[in-house]
Amino acid sequence: MDIPVAPERFFASDNFSGTHPRYLSAIESANSGHVVAYGGDALTKKAVSLFQELCDEDVDVLFTFNGTGSNVVALGSLLQHAESVVCTQWSHIHVDETGAPERILGIKLQDVASLDAKVKPQDIHALSHALGNVHHVQPGVVSITQATELGTLYSIDEIREICDVAHSYGMRVHLDGARIANATAALGGNVETFRALTFGAGVDAVSFGGTKNAMMGAEAVLLRRSVASPRAAYLRKSSTQLPSKMRYASAQFVEALSSGLWLETAAHANAMARRLYDALSHVESLRLSPPQVNSMYPVLPVEVKRALQDWNFFWDWDESVGQVRWMTSWDTTAEDVDRFAAGVLHFLGE
Amino acid sequence: MDIPVAPERFFASDNFSGTHPRYLSAIESANSGHVVAYGGDALTKKAVSLFQELCDEDVDVLFTFNGTGSNVVALGSLLQHAESVVCTQWSHIHVDETGAPERILGIKLQDVASLDAKVKPQDIHALSHALGNVHHVQPGVVSITQATELGTLYSIDEIREICDVAHSYGMRVHLDGARIANATAALGGNVETFRALTFGAGVDAVSFGGTKNAMMGAEAVLLRRSVASPRAAYLRKSSTQLPSKMRYASAQFVEALSSGLWLETAAHANAMARRLYDALSHVESLRLSPPQVNSMYPVLPVEVKRALQDWNFFWDWDESVGQVRWMTSWDTTAEDVDRFAAGVLHFLGE
Amino acid sequence: MDIPVAPERFFASDNFSGTHPRYLSAIESANSGHVVAYGGDALTKKAVSLFQELCDEDVDVLFTFNGTGSNVVALGSLLQHAESVVCTQWSHIHVDETGAPERILGIKLQDVASLDAKVKPQDIHALSHALGNVHHVQPGVVSITQATELGTLYSIDEIREICDVAHSYGMRVHLDGARIANATAALGGNVETFRALTFGAGVDAVSFGGTKNAMMGAEAVLLRRSVASPRAAYLRKSSTQLPSKMRYASAQFVEALSSGLWLETAAHANAMARRLYDALSHVESLRLSPPQVNSMYPVLPVEVKRALQDWNFFWDWDESVGQVRWMTSWDTTAEDVDRFAAGVLHFLGE
Amino acid sequence: MDIPVAPERFFASDNFSGTHPRYLSAIESANSGHVVAYGGDALTKKAVSLFQELCDEDVDVLFTFNGTGSNVVALGSLLQHAESVVCTQWSHIHVDETGAPERILGIKLQDVASLDAKVKPQDIHALSHALGNVHHVQPGVVSITQATELGTLYSIDEIREICDVAHSYGMRVHLDGARIANATAALGGNVETFRALTFGAGVDAVSFGGTKNAMMGAEAVLLRRSVASPRAAYLRKSSTQLPSKMRYASAQFVEALSSGLWLETAAHANAMARRLYDALSHVESLRLSPPQVNSMYPVLPVEVKRALQDWNFFWDWDESVGQVRWMTSWDTTAEDVDRFAAGVLHFLGE
Repeated sequence: MDIPVAPERFFASDNFSGTHPRYLSAIESANSGHVVAYGGDALTKKAVSLFQELCDEDVDVLFTFNGTGSNVVALGSLLQHAESVVCTQWSHIHVDETGAPERILGIKLQDVASLDAKVKPQDIHALSHALGNVHHVQPGVVSITQATELGTLYSIDEIREICDVAHSYGMRVHLDGARIANATAALGGNVETFRALTFGAGVDAVSFGGTKNAMMGAEAVLLRRSVASPRAAYLRKSSTQLPSKMRYASAQFVEALSSGLWLETAAHANAMARRLYDALSHVESLRLSPPQVNSMYPVLPVEVKRALQDWNFFWDWDESVGQVRWMTSWDTTAEDVDRFAAGVLHFLGE
Repeated sequence: MDIPVAPERFFASDNFSGTHPRYLSAIESANSGHVVAYGGDALTKKAVSLFQELCDEDVDVLFTFNGTGSNVVALGSLLQHAESVVCTQWSHIHVDETGAPERILGIKLQDVASLDAKVKPQDIHALSHALGNVHHVQPGVVSITQATELGTLYSIDEIREICDVAHSYGMRVHLDGARIANATAALGGNVETFRALTFGAGVDAVSFGGTKNAMMGAEAVLLRRSVASPRAAYLRKSSTQLPSKMRYASAQFVEALSSGLWLETAAHANAMARRLYDALSHVESLRLSPPQVNSMYPVLPVEVKRALQDWNFFWDWDESVGQVRWMTSWDTTAEDVDRFAAGVLHFLGE
Repeated sequence: MDIPVAPERFFASDNFSGTHPRYLSAIESANSGHVVAYGGDALTKKAVSLFQELCDEDVDVLFTFNGTGSNVVALGSLLQHAESVVCTQWSHIHVDETGAPERILGIKLQDVASLDAKVKPQDIHALSHALGNVHHVQPGVVSITQATELGTLYSIDEIREICDVAHSYGMRVHLDGARIANATAALGGNVETFRALTFGAGVDAVSFGGTKNAMMGAEAVLLRRSVASPRAAYLRKSSTQLPSKMRYASAQFVEALSSGLWLETAAHANAMARRLYDALSHVESLRLSPPQVNSMYPVLPVEVKRALQDWNFFWDWDESVGQVRWMTSWDTTAEDVDRFAAGVLHFLGE
Repeated sequence: MDIPVAPERFFASDNFSGTHPRYLSAIESANSGHVVAYGGDALTKKAVSLFQELCDEDVDVLFTFNGTGSNVVALGSLLQHAESVVCTQWSHIHVDETGAPERILGIKLQDVASLDAKVKPQDIHALSHALGNVHHVQPGVVSITQATELGTLYSIDEIREICDVAHSYGMRVHLDGARIANATAALGGNVETFRALTFGAGVDAVSFGGTKNAMMGAEAVLLRRSVASPRAAYLRKSSTQLPSKMRYASAQFVEALSSGLWLETAAHANAMARRLYDALSHVESLRLSPPQVNSMYPVLPVEVKRALQDWNFFWDWDESVGQVRWMTSWDTTAEDVDRFAAGVLHFLGE
C-alpha cells in the first residue's frame, strides 16, 4: 500500500503554528505613526480595559513576551519572604523553564507527585505542616495549570476547593493559563466560564496565554490587585519582560477579546483533537483517552513511532514506555486530521 | 504669530516609532504553515548564518525579545564566579533596567563617573586594584555602550584600547549595541565598520539592537564562542528570553542583514538629527552639540520646554538644569524635522 | 511504679550538646595576642595543612560557620551555568535549609524519592535524560549525605559507583558530611576510611561537619582543586561565611585532626546509640533497626510519646505514623542511655 | 639610634584581637549539659530580653555569625520588591562584602560619593526622583554606618534628619553598627546614648557588632518590629546565619549588656586612639585628625610606611596617596601605644 499523503501541518505543538490572519491584520493596523512606548499607548489602555472587563475584577494587567516570563512575574508578585511555590511534578514552571523561577526569584518549587498533572487539596494540607517552622521554606503560592501539561482539566469546583484550602493557610493561588483558552472553550466556552474558572473560583493570578493560541508573542499577567504586590510592574521590568513597542501585543488582545476570536481558535483546536480521537479510538493499542482539550498521549511501537515521525513530525513524551504527544492547533484542518489518522493506521498496519 | 503645525511624529524616542514596512512584509511572508519552534526553523538558521558572516568570527547568535534581556544574557554568558560588571554612571544596564542584572545574575555593577558616558582605560586600571582580594568583587566584564546613552561614540581605537586593557587583566568586554546600527552608520556605514567596532576591536559579546532601529521586538546576542559560556542558550531560556515563535524575529534579521536595511534606517535617523542640528545650531541658548548619532540634549527655559512638550512630546533629561532629549527615528521625515525646528524657534520667540 | 529518674542529657539532637573540654581548651590557648584576621593566622595554616594530609589530595580547605553555609559554598563552587543539584527527598539541603541553596545560588534542587535517604545510580541515569535539552535544567552536581538524614550509611562501593556514574555524565559529586565523623567511625574508624569514603571514591567536595561532633561552630569545606572553582574563597565571603576571628575554628580542627578526637567522639556517640538499641530491641512495637550511626527512628503510641517527651525531650519525625527520632551525642553517657531505656520501658508499660 | 621595641599588639584592625576574658568565661559557663539548639535555650531568651531593654522598643533580636551576615539579614528584612539600598561609596556593604547583598538579595546598591563616609539628606532627595518610575530601581532603604568606615561619627541630629527624610519618602533606615559600641562610647557612653543614636532617632534596623568589640563571633540584628518583615528569622536561616549552638553568642551578649562591658571595651579602644593622636599630633606631615573613635588615617612616605609595617603591621588605606589606617582595639595597652608612637617617630626620623 502506498504511504498516504502527509498533512500540511504537524501534530507536534501549538507553537509550531503561525499567527492568525486577523491578529496579523491587527498588528498591521497598529503599525502607524508614533505612540508612547512601554504601554503608554491607546491600544494598550484599551486591551487592559478589555481584560478587566473579562475578569470582572479589580485586576492589574501586564503584557509580557512569553509564558515563562508571565509565570515569573505572576509568581514574583504573589510571593512573600521565604516562601515556596507548590506545583505538580509535570508543571511547566518545574520542568520546562530551565530553572527560571528559581534563578530569578531565588525560590524553591515544591513539586508534588500527580498522575493527572493536577494538584490535590491533600497536597496542600500535607505541605502546610511546614508553616511556622523556621528550618523549612514556607509554602506561599499554589500554582496550578489549566489545561494541564497532560491535557487534563480542573473542574470549576476543583479549582474553588484548591483556592479555599490554599487561602485557609494564607497561601495564594496562581493559574498557569498557557492554554486557558482551550480550557475555557472546553468547559463552557464563554466569558462566564473564564471568570468561574479563575477569579470567581478564588484564583489570585493568571498567566493568560496568547502565543499558543494563534498570537504572535503576546501574553498577559492578570493579578488580583488586593493580593498581588503593588510593585508588579517593576518586577515585570526587572524580569526583562517589559516590551517597548507594546502596541503590537495590545492590538492582538484587543482583537481577541473584543471579537471572541481567542475562544474560537481554541475551540477549533479542541475540536480537531476530538476528530482525531474519533478516527483512531478503535485502535486499542494506542490507549487513547478522549482529549479534554487539544492533545493526546498515545502509545506506539518504537518502529511505528519512528516511521510516523519521519512522515509527519511530533514529539516523544515518555520514551521509556513509547508514549508520544499529538497536539492540534488553531490552524489544524479537518483534512490534516484525516490525513494524519490515515497515516497512523497505515504505519500501524491496521 | 500662529503656532506652527506640529510634526506627524514625535522627537521623543526611537521606540515610539513602529516597524518598517519591509520588516512587516518579512513577518507576513514568514507566517505560513508549521515550523519547529524555539529556533529550529529554517529562517532562524539563515539569520544566524547571516550574523556569523557579518561578524566574520566564530560567534554564537541568540535572538531575544528586548535589550534588557540581551544584556542580561550577554553579561551572564561572560561572567564567572564573584565577578562584577564595570560600566558608566549613565549606562542603561545601571540606570534603566530596574536592577535586572543584579536581580537575575546576582551581581554588582560598578559604575564609574563619566561626563560623556564612555568608560576610560584608567577606570579599568583603577578597579583592577581589587583583583585578588577576597573581600572585594572581582571586576570581570567591562560593559560599554555604542552609541552611548548620551549619544556619543567611541572610536574604533578607543574600543580597541578598552579591550586591550580589559583583557590584560583577564576581564572580558561587552558592548551594549541597542544603537550599534546608528554607530556603525556614523563611523563608516558598512559591514567592515561593524566588524572593526566590535569583534575586530576585541569585544567579546554584543547586544545587537533591532527594536530601536525599525524592527518589531527583535534583538540578538552575539557571543565570541571561545570566551562565552557554552551554556549561553540555557541562560537565555532561564532569563525568560527564548521566543517560541522565533521565526518572526529571524525573518526580520534576514531582511535586515541581507539587504542592508539595518544600516539604511540608522543612517536616515542620524541624518535627520543632523538636519535638526543644522536648523537650530545658531540658537546659542540651546547649547547644541553636533549630533554624533540620532539624539541631542539641548537646554530650554522651563516655560518653553513645557509649551513645546505639549505641542509635540519629548522627554526631559535632567530637569535640574532644564536639559531635554530630542531623538530622531528611522521614520522621522525631513518635513517632521523642519516643522519641529520651526516650533522650537516659535516657542523660543526667535 | 515510680517514674524513673530522667537522664541528664536529652536524646534530641547532637546539636543540643555543648563543646568538648579539649576543644574549649584549644580555644582558650588560641586566645592570646593579635593575629591576622580572616584566616591569615598560623593556626589556620596548620589546620588547613592537617586537612590536606587527611584527604591525601590536592584540596582547597575553607572553614565556615555552619553546615548550611558549607553546603552553599561547596555546591556553588562545583556548579556551572544552568545546572541543578540532584539529592534525595530527605536531604538537609532540600528540607532543612529554608531554601538557602535556591536563594543564594539561584538553582534548582532535583529531589529523588528514596526510602533510605540514599541516591541510587539509576536516579542519576534517569535525570541525565535532560542533558543537552535547553528547556530543562542540567543536572550538574549529585549531593549525597553521609551518614544520611535517616541515619543510614553508603558503603564505599556505593559512593564509588555514584561518583563513577555522575562523572560519566560530566556531573560532580558533593558529600554533605555533617556527620561524616560518625560514618567514618562506623565504617572503619581511621583516616584511611575517611579517604576511601570521600576523595578516594571520587567525591569532589565535602562539607566536613564539626559542630554536631562536639565542636563550637566549626565547619570545613574540602574541595578537589582540579574540579572546584578557583573562586571558592570569594563564594565563601559572598555567602557570608568568612569568619574574621578564624583562629577559634582552626584551633579546634588542629586539636581534632592531630589527636584523632573527631573520631573518638563520633565513635562514642555511635556506641551509645547501639547501647540504647541493645536495651530496647526486644520491644517489637518500637520497630527498631540496629543504628548504623547515632540515631534511631522508633514508633510510639501517641500517649506514650507525649509522656516520654515531657519526661526527656526528643523530636517527632513523622507524626502521621507516630515516628520519632532518638539521637545520641558525643557527651551521652552510659547512665543517660540506661535511664532513657528504663523510661521508655516504663512509659510503654513493659 | 636603635630601633624601638615593637608593641605586643598590632595597630591593624580590631579583628586582629582575641576575645575578652570575661566573654571567654561566659562561654565556659554556658558549656554545660544539653540545651535546645537554634536559640531555644534560656541564655538566648535572656540575651534577647536584654537587647529589648537596651533598645526600649518593640524589636526583633536575631543573633548571627558575622557582620556581613547581619547586614544581609537586616537589609533583606527591610526591603520590598524592586527596591535598592542607598549607601556611601565607602560603605562596608558596598566595598567589603564581595557583593554579598547583591548576590543573596538580588538587589542594587546605590552608592553616593562622600568625603566623610556619611550619607547626606540631599543624597536621599536626589535619589528619590526615581520613585514611581518603572524603569528605575526604587530607593527603599538608606544604610548608614556608625561609626563610619572612615572613623567618623554621625551626630544624633544628623541621624534623625536622615531618618526623617528617608521616612518622608517611604524609605526605611538601616544602621551598620559594626562599631556602634565605639560610637556610643564616644557620643555619651551610656544606654541612653545608644537609644538616641538608633531607634530613638528613627532607625529601623541595626546591625549590632560584637566581634570587633572583644567578642568571639557574636553579632546581632535588631529590627523594629512594626517595620521589618515578620519573616526575618526565616531570612536569617536562608542566609546561612542561624547558629545551632546559639548559647555561646547569647552568653557573651548577656555578659556584655548586663555588665556594660561592651561600652567599657569600646571606650578603652577609643581612648587608646586618642592617646596615640596626642603622642603624634605634633608631626604635621602625618596630617592626623583627632580620632572620633578608634582609628586614624595618616599619610606616610612610602619608605617609612614599609619600614613601619615590617616592624609592626598595619594596613594600607589608599596607596596612591600613601595613606594608611591605624586602629586600636579593646586590648591595646598604653604601653602598646607609647611603643608604637616611639616607633613612628623613629622611622620618620623625628
